[in-house]
Amino acid sequence: MNALPSFEQVRDAAARIAPHARVTPVLRSAALDALAGAELHFKCENLQRGGAFKFRGACNAVWSLDDAQAARGVVTHSSGNHGNALALAAATRGIAAHVVVPEGAVRAKLEAIERAGATLHRCAPTQAAREAMCAEVQRATGAELVHPYADTRVMAGQGTIALELLQQAPELDALITPVGGGGLASGVAIAAHALDPSLALFGAEPLGADDAAQSLARGARVTTVVPDTICDGLRALVGERNLDALRTHRVEVIAVSDAETVAAMQLLWSELKQVVEVSSATVLAAILKQPQRFAGRRVGVVLTGGNVDLQALPW
Amino acid sequence: MNALPSFEQVRDAAARIAPHARVTPVLRSAALDALAGAELHFKCENLQRGGAFKFRGACNAVWSLDDAQAARGVVTHSSGNHGNALALAAATRGIAAHVVVPEGAVRAKLEAIERAGATLHRCAPTQAAREAMCAEVQRATGAELVHPYADTRVMAGQGTIALELLQQAPELDALITPVGGGGLASGVAIAAHALDPSLALFGAEPLGADDAAQSLARGARVTTVVPDTICDGLRALVGERNLDALRTHRVEVIAVSDAETVAAMQLLWSELKQVVEVSSATVLAAILKQPQRFAGRRVGVVLTGGNVDLQALPW
Repeated sequence: MNALPSFEQVRDAAARIAPHARVTPVLRSAALDALAGAELHFKCENLQRGGAFKFRGACNAVWSLDDAQAARGVVTHSSGNHGNALALAAATRGIAAHVVVPEGAVRAKLEAIERAGATLHRCAPTQAAREAMCAEVQRATGAELVHPYADTRVMAGQGTIALELLQQAPELDALITPVGGGGLASGVAIAAHALDPSLALFGAEPLGADDAAQSLARGARVTTVVPDTICDGLRALVGERNLDALRTHRVEVIAVSDAETVAAMQLLWSELKQVVEVSSATVLAAILKQPQRFAGRRVGVVLTGGNVDLQALPW
Repeated sequence: MNALPSFEQVRDAAARIAPHARVTPVLRSAALDALAGAELHFKCENLQRGGAFKFRGACNAVWSLDDAQAARGVVTHSSGNHGNALALAAATRGIAAHVVVPEGAVRAKLEAIERAGATLHRCAPTQAAREAMCAEVQRATGAELVHPYADTRVMAGQGTIALELLQQAPELDALITPVGGGGLASGVAIAAHALDPSLALFGAEPLGADDAAQSLARGARVTTVVPDTICDGLRALVGERNLDALRTHRVEVIAVSDAETVAAMQLLWSELKQVVEVSSATVLAAILKQPQRFAGRRVGVVLTGGNVDLQALPW
């Protein structure tokens, strides 16, 4: 259930979600290229359905179910974007969605989940409380759990970003994504290296939730990190299988401070003219923090989402 | 010099600017469609070079000059985006640009003009002061005046937006642009009706600078309006020839309050995920104010620019 997907499964996911997901544009900015000293190709998943890449994985999971499973609905726990994505994906198949949300989640995201027709179940903001509430909903409804990142179908769905980006910008030398639970980073790594084993792969992580960087450095999964970052989409600890993929594919994870991320967020808004959420800006922050790793290269940069509360901007 | 361009001149402009301008994407939003009760196709000129559609007209003007004219440079007066566009366009040809800017212009825009390599000349924020300073620079340098909207080459350049949009979204029933000096609205009207005379054309104007709406209603150009609006890109009075084009092409102008525009701006940021400046949001405000005029139609909506000061948002 949480095994890493094969490249074949990523390809299958691409076909499965094609009728529902958007092919998002790749945008450029001369000003940001000059600032980075590199050629940046921004994959704008803030323009994906639901405003985040998460729709890909959720949609692949929903349309992978057989009819009997589907009839019982789906359930997940999510700080926002995956929940919204699952709600939207369930709606494309006309089935029920239950979303367990931690207290303190971004208001705009919760409203979007409810607008998409899902049932919200609130719980305390701990991993244990989320999982307990999820199990309770599963018992009560028989709904299928679609985990935000430790799920083969979800990782395969997120991996379709790499397929699409490498078709739109075939000459890339490197790719960078944010790392939270690692569903995106692992799916992208598997797909990207299947297409081009020479691609250099990078991850960006908040310093206040740098468990993936610590785990890779130590050679063993670090689970003692207590997330302390404004990047609400990147507070999850990286999953075990996801971490395996980062290791296998030699993904270098760069940790950035919240201040660096907020500065990068403003650059993406003012120069690329894209509304991206704070978690999405970690990738540009990482490039600007360690420019020597990217200098002169053609870099695919995954902008993960654009769901923000305009009344509560972090500057 | 300020005669209305022919369709042929718009086509020539498209060929002339093709090596320099971007083909901007057309974006959709299910949420905004639902809100408007119409199918909205947003032409994202906030993603044009320099962050605004103005690059098209300026670029056409710069590359229309013969070598002797070009060697003396170009000059204009502009509250920001046209000045920035002319600076960038001049740089593509390696010639000098002089930009007369009124006091009180948006800081972010002035910085961009200087970054593009132009010389700034400050003046009082009146039409008379702008024109006097412009004439002075012309006398001193021999530079060619490229007026922001009362210029055949500029109108033809702006009209290329309609060519491009109707290629990207051929099934449109209607088009709407903001109306300031009218360079965009007139160029688009000429090109759009040459391609499809059945297209319904609309303009959006701030209530505090609704001289075009008043002029069309009265059948004569109203020049007594003293602009009072936060839409800094739409404070100019509509030009005489530009007004002729609005009349000939039966452009219906809808006036919207600044409050309606700011609300629409927030919707474009949160739902379309596009950073657009306040003037750009008048078009969505107009659609939401008079939904019966757009109900069920496929509407091309020109988002004109995305140059904002993130430290001074209007909410």
